[in-house]
Amino acid sequence: MKSQSIITLLTDFGTKDTYVPQMKGVLLSMNPQLKIVDVSHQVSPHNILEGGFLLKTVYSYFPKKTIHVCVVDPGVGTSRKAILIETENYFFIGPDNGIFTFALENEKIKSIIELKNSEYHLKNVSITFHGRDIFTPVAAHLSLGMKPQQFGPALEKIKSLDAPSVHQNEKSVEGEVLYADHFGNLVSNIQKKDLKPHAHYSMKIQDKTIEDISKTYFDRPKNNLVALFGSSGYLEIAIVEGSAKQLFPSFNKIVLQEIKKS
Amino acid sequence: MKSQSIITLLTDFGTKDTYVPQMKGVLLSMNPQLKIVDVSHQVSPHNILEGGFLLKTVYSYFPKKTIHVCVVDPGVGTSRKAILIETENYFFIGPDNGIFTFALENEKIKSIIELKNSEYHLKNVSITFHGRDIFTPVAAHLSLGMKPQQFGPALEKIKSLDAPSVHQNEKSVEGEVLYADHFGNLVSNIQKKDLKPHAHYSMKIQDKTIEDISKTYFDRPKNNLVALFGSSGYLEIAIVEGSAKQLFPSFNKIVLQEIKKS
Amino acid sequence: MKSQSIITLLTDFGTKDTYVPQMKGVLLSMNPQLKIVDVSHQVSPHNILEGGFLLKTVYSYFPKKTIHVCVVDPGVGTSRKAILIETENYFFIGPDNGIFTFALENEKIKSIIELKNSEYHLKNVSITFHGRDIFTPVAAHLSLGMKPQQFGPALEKIKSLDAPSVHQNEKSVEGEVLYADHFGNLVSNIQKKDLKPHAHYSMKIQDKTIEDISKTYFDRPKNNLVALFGSSGYLEIAIVEGSAKQLFPSFNKIVLQEIKKS
Repeated sequence: MKSQSIITLLTDFGTKDTYVPQMKGVLLSMNPQLKIVDVSHQVSPHNILEGGFLLKTVYSYFPKKTIHVCVVDPGVGTSRKAILIETENYFFIGPDNGIFTFALENEKIKSIIELKNSEYHLKNVSITFHGRDIFTPVAAHLSLGMKPQQFGPALEKIKSLDAPSVHQNEKSVEGEVLYADHFGNLVSNIQKKDLKPHAHYSMKIQDKTIEDISKTYFDRPKNNLVALFGSSGYLEIAIVEGSAKQLFPSFNKIVLQEIKKS
Repeated sequence: MKSQSIITLLTDFGTKDTYVPQMKGVLLSMNPQLKIVDVSHQVSPHNILEGGFLLKTVYSYFPKKTIHVCVVDPGVGTSRKAILIETENYFFIGPDNGIFTFALENEKIKSIIELKNSEYHLKNVSITFHGRDIFTPVAAHLSLGMKPQQFGPALEKIKSLDAPSVHQNEKSVEGEVLYADHFGNLVSNIQKKDLKPHAHYSMKIQDKTIEDISKTYFDRPKNNLVALFGSSGYLEIAIVEGSAKQLFPSFNKIVLQEIKKS
Repeated sequence: MKSQSIITLLTDFGTKDTYVPQMKGVLLSMNPQLKIVDVSHQVSPHNILEGGFLLKTVYSYFPKKTIHVCVVDPGVGTSRKAILIETENYFFIGPDNGIFTFALENEKIKSIIELKNSEYHLKNVSITFHGRDIFTPVAAHLSLGMKPQQFGPALEKIKSLDAPSVHQNEKSVEGEVLYADHFGNLVSNIQKKDLKPHAHYSMKIQDKTIEDISKTYFDRPKNNLVALFGSSGYLEIAIVEGSAKQLFPSFNKIVLQEIKKS
């Protein structure tokens, strides 16, 4: 691996405090050639599911061999493991709490390492901030050419998240809202592959009905409710030029009813 | 152009979701040497006027040949065009919705290209995210040495924003608040050139009067209302160590009255 | 110094406006090889104490010779000086308003320079934005190999912040909350060195009592109140998986009472 590696950072640290730049300082102190890219630091505090979902939507747009460091880590200081996962395409570094579950769905795992070799951690590892003291030093060493196996023993398996699943019935499909984005679009776990090809579906959002799935946010008049497959491939509920999250703050369960169309 | 080009990103995507890092991943996958600079991702959703104003205040501080990618794009998926503008100094890439109007006021246009050549887009262009699928791949190709003309046919003209204009009367000047900044300063469209040299002006902000235009935010006592030309050259209404936006949330129309001063 | 220097930026400008990217444009126009790292742009407006505290928590994680540019500058345009401080390890550039007080506690100062030599500023220095017009051009020149002494005359002393201090009594230690972080943890000015080794301490947070100082955020059940030394070395008051700031928004004075433990 060349020293100009790319490292991405995904955390729930926000951008006011200095937790993120502390990690960047550690990285650049060890490898000044690194390219560091912020994925998001606005994951809802301690929300592993949300962090894992965000990671899935973005990791594969980066060049092969990119090192993805993820620090949504409510269990820091407890017995949860620190891990490095090498897949055929990428490296993932973070806590063993299920945050990598979604990203790994489409990746072929080559090795899983427990980061036990303290030689490659900062000297005085804090009990509350492994992002700075373990994950980033390991990422920097990796970018400089070290092999995953040098950081500790192999693991057989890692923790998996219980993600809400999609249910396919004879004439309907049921899913859940996973996430509301910046525009207030409600992003569900339903993908195109969960629907019958060529079928049409309507759905109820509380007391409103969406008659069919649209192609864009704007093929309906302003303030209309639409459903469409967003740029990450998941079914979204949106208000044209408005915020669905604001109108339906607690809407969660989506039921698509198959309909007949001429 | 060298491969170490600078690309700036201006969007209304916010920084929680992964829309922006998806674009960065696409850019770095195509040209790992790029320097990517965030201009702002906090443009109010779908607010083309605000995005265009922000772009104008910043684009010219970057080195010549910088590629400015702007994605405030409420019309994505409709018939609005995707464009690349080459001026004597810079490149601008984004939707043809008027967002470049203000920046182009001081730039000499060399060519306008419609981004129709899908060979240089991502393979499966989504209907809802041209920022990732068209604008950034074109920007990356451009940074690698391609010519604007390779991306599609030339256009004669582009869409222009109807920006609120400044009115000069015999004894007064009328303008509008365009934008409130992070400090709550109300930034208007009035520039120094709109005023008579050496003249003095007073103005009314609802029931308060500002007697003259100040030089700094701090030549009046705390909590006083002041008017001054800000660092971007526009007349601003500010509260010393406070927020004018908070006190006058809906103030919009500014009238400067010429006054006699000994 | 090599041209690939690292420059960090700490401001109260927020990330919506273009003040920060204007500074980045100036830096990259003068030295395109620079690595620019955002420390924070979310310092509370005009809060020099908070900016100084944030700087202290992060500056030393960066490589030696990093240039730290700090722009929390309510006195811009008044007679406050613009300064450059060279220590044995780092450079600090910003207003002479005390923002460097905390960071300098552990640094050995080599020289303090007043940035009076306008040859190295932007051509038309605004009265309201020295971050862009003085501090960043000087930082860029410094990164290109100029000596601190070229930017102006030496200063004997700089302004110091009156920081709230820790009081050690016979059986108690008194400190203050300096800052609430993104998780709502209340960060005080009390460090381990302020306590007696091997002693135990309890404390009252309004009507609640914390019996002892914990090791991690998670060795108590959810929603319990804990005190612990955070990753920056300061005593913090936290709610397990919750926000102490939300429950005790105005809590400020911490009194640790020494207790006997078997």
